[in-house]
Amino acid sequence: MSYRIEKDTLGDVKVPADKYWGAQTERSRNNFPIGDPASMPKEIIEAFGYLKKAAAITNHKLGVLAEEKKDLICKVCDEIINHELDDQFPLVIWQTGSGTQSNMNVNEVVANRAHVLEGNKLGEGERTIHPNDDVNKSQSSNDTFPTAMHIAAYKMLVEQTIPALESLRNALEEKSKEMDEVVKIGRTHWMDATPLTLGQEFSGYVSQIDHGLNAINNSLSHLSELALGGTAVGTGLNTPKGYAEEVAFNIAELTGYDFVTAENKFESLAAHDAIVESHNSLKQVAVSIMKIANDLRMLASGPRSGIGEIIIPANEPGSSIMPGKVNPTQIEAITMVAAQVMGNDVAIGVGGSNGHFELNVFKPMMVANFLQSARLLADAVNSFVERLVIGIKPNNERIQELLNNSLMLVTALNTKIGYEKAAKIAKTAFAEGTTLKESALKLGFLTEDEFDQWVDPSKMIGK
Amino acid sequence: MSYRIEKDTLGDVKVPADKYWGAQTERSRNNFPIGDPASMPKEIIEAFGYLKKAAAITNHKLGVLAEEKKDLICKVCDEIINHELDDQFPLVIWQTGSGTQSNMNVNEVVANRAHVLEGNKLGEGERTIHPNDDVNKSQSSNDTFPTAMHIAAYKMLVEQTIPALESLRNALEEKSKEMDEVVKIGRTHWMDATPLTLGQEFSGYVSQIDHGLNAINNSLSHLSELALGGTAVGTGLNTPKGYAEEVAFNIAELTGYDFVTAENKFESLAAHDAIVESHNSLKQVAVSIMKIANDLRMLASGPRSGIGEIIIPANEPGSSIMPGKVNPTQIEAITMVAAQVMGNDVAIGVGGSNGHFELNVFKPMMVANFLQSARLLADAVNSFVERLVIGIKPNNERIQELLNNSLMLVTALNTKIGYEKAAKIAKTAFAEGTTLKESALKLGFLTEDEFDQWVDPSKMIGK
Amino acid sequence: MSYRIEKDTLGDVKVPADKYWGAQTERSRNNFPIGDPASMPKEIIEAFGYLKKAAAITNHKLGVLAEEKKDLICKVCDEIINHELDDQFPLVIWQTGSGTQSNMNVNEVVANRAHVLEGNKLGEGERTIHPNDDVNKSQSSNDTFPTAMHIAAYKMLVEQTIPALESLRNALEEKSKEMDEVVKIGRTHWMDATPLTLGQEFSGYVSQIDHGLNAINNSLSHLSELALGGTAVGTGLNTPKGYAEEVAFNIAELTGYDFVTAENKFESLAAHDAIVESHNSLKQVAVSIMKIANDLRMLASGPRSGIGEIIIPANEPGSSIMPGKVNPTQIEAITMVAAQVMGNDVAIGVGGSNGHFELNVFKPMMVANFLQSARLLADAVNSFVERLVIGIKPNNERIQELLNNSLMLVTALNTKIGYEKAAKIAKTAFAEGTTLKESALKLGFLTEDEFDQWVDPSKMIGK
Amino acid sequence: MSYRIEKDTLGDVKVPADKYWGAQTERSRNNFPIGDPASMPKEIIEAFGYLKKAAAITNHKLGVLAEEKKDLICKVCDEIINHELDDQFPLVIWQTGSGTQSNMNVNEVVANRAHVLEGNKLGEGERTIHPNDDVNKSQSSNDTFPTAMHIAAYKMLVEQTIPALESLRNALEEKSKEMDEVVKIGRTHWMDATPLTLGQEFSGYVSQIDHGLNAINNSLSHLSELALGGTAVGTGLNTPKGYAEEVAFNIAELTGYDFVTAENKFESLAAHDAIVESHNSLKQVAVSIMKIANDLRMLASGPRSGIGEIIIPANEPGSSIMPGKVNPTQIEAITMVAAQVMGNDVAIGVGGSNGHFELNVFKPMMVANFLQSARLLADAVNSFVERLVIGIKPNNERIQELLNNSLMLVTALNTKIGYEKAAKIAKTAFAEGTTLKESALKLGFLTEDEFDQWVDPSKMIGK
Repeated sequence: MSYRIEKDTLGDVKVPADKYWGAQTERSRNNFPIGDPASMPKEIIEAFGYLKKAAAITNHKLGVLAEEKKDLICKVCDEIINHELDDQFPLVIWQTGSGTQSNMNVNEVVANRAHVLEGNKLGEGERTIHPNDDVNKSQSSNDTFPTAMHIAAYKMLVEQTIPALESLRNALEEKSKEMDEVVKIGRTHWMDATPLTLGQEFSGYVSQIDHGLNAINNSLSHLSELALGGTAVGTGLNTPKGYAEEVAFNIAELTGYDFVTAENKFESLAAHDAIVESHNSLKQVAVSIMKIANDLRMLASGPRSGIGEIIIPANEPGSSIMPGKVNPTQIEAITMVAAQVMGNDVAIGVGGSNGHFELNVFKPMMVANFLQSARLLADAVNSFVERLVIGIKPNNERIQELLNNSLMLVTALNTKIGYEKAAKIAKTAFAEGTTLKESALKLGFLTEDEFDQWVDPSKMIGK
Repeated sequence: MSYRIEKDTLGDVKVPADKYWGAQTERSRNNFPIGDPASMPKEIIEAFGYLKKAAAITNHKLGVLAEEKKDLICKVCDEIINHELDDQFPLVIWQTGSGTQSNMNVNEVVANRAHVLEGNKLGEGERTIHPNDDVNKSQSSNDTFPTAMHIAAYKMLVEQTIPALESLRNALEEKSKEMDEVVKIGRTHWMDATPLTLGQEFSGYVSQIDHGLNAINNSLSHLSELALGGTAVGTGLNTPKGYAEEVAFNIAELTGYDFVTAENKFESLAAHDAIVESHNSLKQVAVSIMKIANDLRMLASGPRSGIGEIIIPANEPGSSIMPGKVNPTQIEAITMVAAQVMGNDVAIGVGGSNGHFELNVFKPMMVANFLQSARLLADAVNSFVERLVIGIKPNNERIQELLNNSLMLVTALNTKIGYEKAAKIAKTAFAEGTTLKESALKLGFLTEDEFDQWVDPSKMIGK
Repeated sequence: MSYRIEKDTLGDVKVPADKYWGAQTERSRNNFPIGDPASMPKEIIEAFGYLKKAAAITNHKLGVLAEEKKDLICKVCDEIINHELDDQFPLVIWQTGSGTQSNMNVNEVVANRAHVLEGNKLGEGERTIHPNDDVNKSQSSNDTFPTAMHIAAYKMLVEQTIPALESLRNALEEKSKEMDEVVKIGRTHWMDATPLTLGQEFSGYVSQIDHGLNAINNSLSHLSELALGGTAVGTGLNTPKGYAEEVAFNIAELTGYDFVTAENKFESLAAHDAIVESHNSLKQVAVSIMKIANDLRMLASGPRSGIGEIIIPANEPGSSIMPGKVNPTQIEAITMVAAQVMGNDVAIGVGGSNGHFELNVFKPMMVANFLQSARLLADAVNSFVERLVIGIKPNNERIQELLNNSLMLVTALNTKIGYEKAAKIAKTAFAEGTTLKESALKLGFLTEDEFDQWVDPSKMIGK
Repeated sequence: MSYRIEKDTLGDVKVPADKYWGAQTERSRNNFPIGDPASMPKEIIEAFGYLKKAAAITNHKLGVLAEEKKDLICKVCDEIINHELDDQFPLVIWQTGSGTQSNMNVNEVVANRAHVLEGNKLGEGERTIHPNDDVNKSQSSNDTFPTAMHIAAYKMLVEQTIPALESLRNALEEKSKEMDEVVKIGRTHWMDATPLTLGQEFSGYVSQIDHGLNAINNSLSHLSELALGGTAVGTGLNTPKGYAEEVAFNIAELTGYDFVTAENKFESLAAHDAIVESHNSLKQVAVSIMKIANDLRMLASGPRSGIGEIIIPANEPGSSIMPGKVNPTQIEAITMVAAQVMGNDVAIGVGGSNGHFELNVFKPMMVANFLQSARLLADAVNSFVERLVIGIKPNNERIQELLNNSLMLVTALNTKIGYEKAAKIAKTAFAEGTTLKESALKLGFLTEDEFDQWVDPSKMIGK
């Protein structure tokens, strides 16, 4: 491979000749051989595209950056936003905890790519754009990286996670309506209980997702606050007047989302409670999904020796050894995602709690976990909806069979003959292996007509 | 000890003669010798007082409970609410996961205590009030226990945790204002950075708590939804028409808080996402507190060989072996609480994710962890404010000494002479052990006048 | 209440006249009103009894403590060990993170109680024993508290948790043998699979607990290392020569367990990896128990509309509204405990990771969580064994019914007619609602004789 | 792109013409668009290479697989082990929870690649090797995937994680010896305490890592147990006699590690406690590393306004805005890894606790988290050792300055003049801003000679 020489304040560094990055990126690449290369999420790089562009526009407007420089920077940023330069960002999550090196990676790529866009050869001649003095003008890693975190997290939620969850709640609601008349046995403590409809059962799932969506939406406000303008420690040193508000305005313009400048920049650099807060809502959704998916797994169990009240689509052969087996694979994928999100939540909490003074240095880890959770939830939910939920069908025959067997229909008699006599009927039927009616009549607590009138599952579902 | 005989549907049970509880409570007491006795939180018992009273009032109003019975039930409930009967609730958290046995404990105590209030002897004669048919009328453990969970959790947050956190944010804001002019060195990566004021540093803490309070408040809406009216599986079987809304209204009246009937009762019984959601906000606050308290611990370190920028109150001798030592003990107590809350969050998440079908059976564990977190945070924060925060004072001499030593003031020169020359000044000063000014003049990058004018910490704090 | 005046290096303090504790305990009581009073685990107090006694014996033997003083201290320590002075320890977990105040509580109680044992009146006259100079001789809170942590944790594991788990593995093994011939349908992915015996299923649970016990036992070695002798920072300042080894020897003698002096005292004070390590094994057991108990819950489900392959004891009426219901309450209690242990594990990890320099100051929180986990597991497991496991019976009729229905018996044909033909038989039977045999014969892949010979569940269980 | 048609029991599937995988792999690729493609860890694929080879050898030896087939399978497996076919494994972690589809991916690739190795064209003609009947002979996904999990996890620990941690403990021990004479101030509660040497401080870190290594090594035994031979549910259905032991022997031969057949196959399929147990030890190490790295971060803080007792290497420019700043970036990388491992531990615990009946279906998620932790720890530790630990130097001048300032040297006087007088000296010196000696002499508690003789840091370090 051929190299060129780049410099930084520590000296010379050999950089691959055809790459736009510079000395600091290369140092980081060499100094952090931890995990897979280029693991820094691409969403963070894209977010940097927006923020560097917005900074250039703002710096120009506030009179501290020449128009020519601004235009050049914007041009490269557009390429970054369009993911045309993704192979120029080789750094990993496990670098400096401020993400400084990824900020410098962007600064260096913009400066060098601009040099080439101007018609020059990489590594030759004087560059118009300086990585620190121009691309990073009025910025510090300390305020750019958290800004990129918020942009990336917010966009992912709004563009992927929330729409996926909305489609899930809608699909579940659709099913709930479809199966609203299907009376089935309820189960509490995993034991037979009084009846409800399949539609009612699914309405609980809809409500869980609704509350989860509400929690995510509540967290967006904190996430919409941008650190940019705080620079090194939150004071805004080396920024022109009005910069913070203006740059947030420009980011909002460019992305189309309601970003605002953070009221308190010290919090935005030193803590990442917004990430903690918002991921909390993802964890809540993961908890909900674990419950819902487990229910569906058990409802679909069988085909002959399980519960079998619903039928789910067969998307692939289930077993390499058991012929003809169909497994709830989408459920398995999404519950694994749920477990992952519950784990990521702890990683984020530990990172968030370990900030020191003016800077939290667990930034890349925190945002990588956040983006992983948000994306996996989005992807898994979309697949779950498309390949499982919309294909769910009630197994009416089986439902009827299990309902009719149930002893818990006796509960309807509480208000007629009292809890204790009702219990006696159920216990006798259970002990003697008879039906409730047989037991009730034998015990003489009520007449056959009364039984037929009072013990009617379709009247026990609160409708 | 003397006993009397009580019965339930499984047969006779010997119960301590002087206790109001009955057969089912006694069975649970015997069947769950797990951990300390009577560990079921007293706040849950109190909440049951409210809900049983509200249920009696509602049942009466809707015509299914006689006035005499209603009055008797209300009388005992008032005693429960006033914690006069606390010794009648011997059950543990680690019982049935629906909390059924604590619901029955309340039902039994109300029935038997009412019997005594009527002038009868415990265990003798026919009772006016039946535990199941009257006290539990229009209810099931499955909807009462989650209702009690929400009442207890909501009250604890509103009455204890939120006020404590408000006093913390106010105390921190007070300090922030007091120390607004105290310019000090900033620290990023735990390394010297550009200056800010102590007031600015504390303003970040205020902002963290503000966002935490906002998150807690956002979670109250889910917590205000009551399950009551869902009975066994969420359908409301065996409840009179209008019961759910009316009983929620009565609970709101009795407690003075905005409780409402849950829109979807299936969710309220089968999942406890409201507890997950609300505890998430407590975990967020724990993460914030860990950061803030750690900062204060380090700022107060010394007295001679640490950072020592603030002075904290000496509340007790610090060491059994090192004479004269004063330790940041309030910080240690509150950071231990923060760690506990982070752990409780996982216990709650695991419990929440493990619900099955129509009932989550991790209820007592979930609410016990919630109440522990909410109470420990409230208590620890109150102590922290009173015995630490309000006593914080800047150590001005030390602050000045550390500020003047700093090489990072060089950052002010970036916009004057460029990043690279500025770096050279800092590195030379560091290498040669000189001051910045000496280094700057030696390198000839600027004049003494320029240096004095440009490198002024008080102009570097964004004010 | 009447008071007497006690003093410490900060001045006078009013202490309840009838209590043995002194100024520092009282200050802590007043300064940490966090959670329930006296929450410091009693096992820690008992452990302090052992260590103070061992220290006195050692100090005497090494010539730095007079015999009279030694004897007095030992006398009080015996009372502490016998839990006769439990009401003299009012402090909470949420105090200074080194546990200094509980160490001083012990020192003060020993000194004052000794004074009374000598026939003096509390608070009057000169004491023979000085809390710091005698009871705490050759010690620091920094080495006594971690020593007490290890003694308490080790004893709890060896005396309670391990025996309970051994009884669980034995009870499960007993059941495994009892049901070794009961061929039943297997389930993978919660779907019907090839058969195994109930005994084989339970043997997997035995193996899980065996591995868990092995993990706990592996952790005892780290836990057997005692910090005592490290004093303030681990150097052993102010201890006589040979003290560390001798005091560990004496603790081993007094407790009857193989305690040794820690090879590295700096680790013992600054980190609590032994607690982390040992609790890891408790978490592993919790994970195992969650799996096992969930299986039993589902196997016992019904009575009519679930799986119902096993029958579990009915220990109490299950429902306040559904008459005759029996619930798997012991399973619910123990799975709640498992979730708690999983949460405690995170609290302990967070505490363990936050030590600074020569001292970890999350000690009381860490050990309180450890002891809670160890005790809840012991209690819950004992109850689970006694009230559930030993009463488990196979529901043979139901097992037979589910086994015969299964389509997965077709797997036996793989090695006879190949995977693809076998799959076709299963799919056809499923689609047409027929038996495997009907389908096999219809497809003409084998003869009836072959079918009967090859598809025999009792030959499919690897025996 | 051009395609060929492949079939499975569900019908035809279009597969990229140049890929070796078949119908089931392609279905999975289409059905699980969750997260990045090909996220299934390459170590798992490699492990499958070993196990398929061992299975072929064993099947041949036991007379159920022809030599020609065995040789062909082995040939392809060698290519897999050598990572020559990595691009043939496009599946993700978030698939079926048994990993069935990755098992089939391997089966299909082996069969098709063998076909090509025989000189045929992919997709044309009859294949010698059948994916299910030959490559998967005597196997099920249910026993192959957990076998691959153990092989991959064990190898990673033994080849990467353990050696890295050994190099860390050695590097720390080297430093400990180097700095064994450097007396410095100790810190407890982050406050000045009695002295110790830098070497002693580092010896605590060595001890932490030693205990962590011991815990990892203890966990290897469980991990060495292989599920292979259990097939579908653990009974070993469709395996020849002696298969399980023989195949484990062959895996041990091929890998060079002490793998054995699991004593209980039901446990090996239904639970992954070995993964839980072994990851516990990684979490313990993460907790240790968080403590150690935090200490180093604080010891290295400055350069002028922190603690500054050690000097760490400057590997790159630290700041994009603050010229000349050097940050502890290796510490930041490794503490982010530690937080990640703590989170992964929860994901693994949740997955492990959620197994049902004969199969845990959180397998790919569990092993992916395990491998991530093991690899990140190995990589980060190696980088940490090379770029940080071995470059650590004491800052002797600063150490001396902080030591001499300390008031805690007064502790040496406890045994000479008693705790209370010693405390008075320290408090007076602190209040009046004087040295200890000045204060001691002023108070008249001892002579100057006595002071100089007794208060000597070099005698306070237990040597």
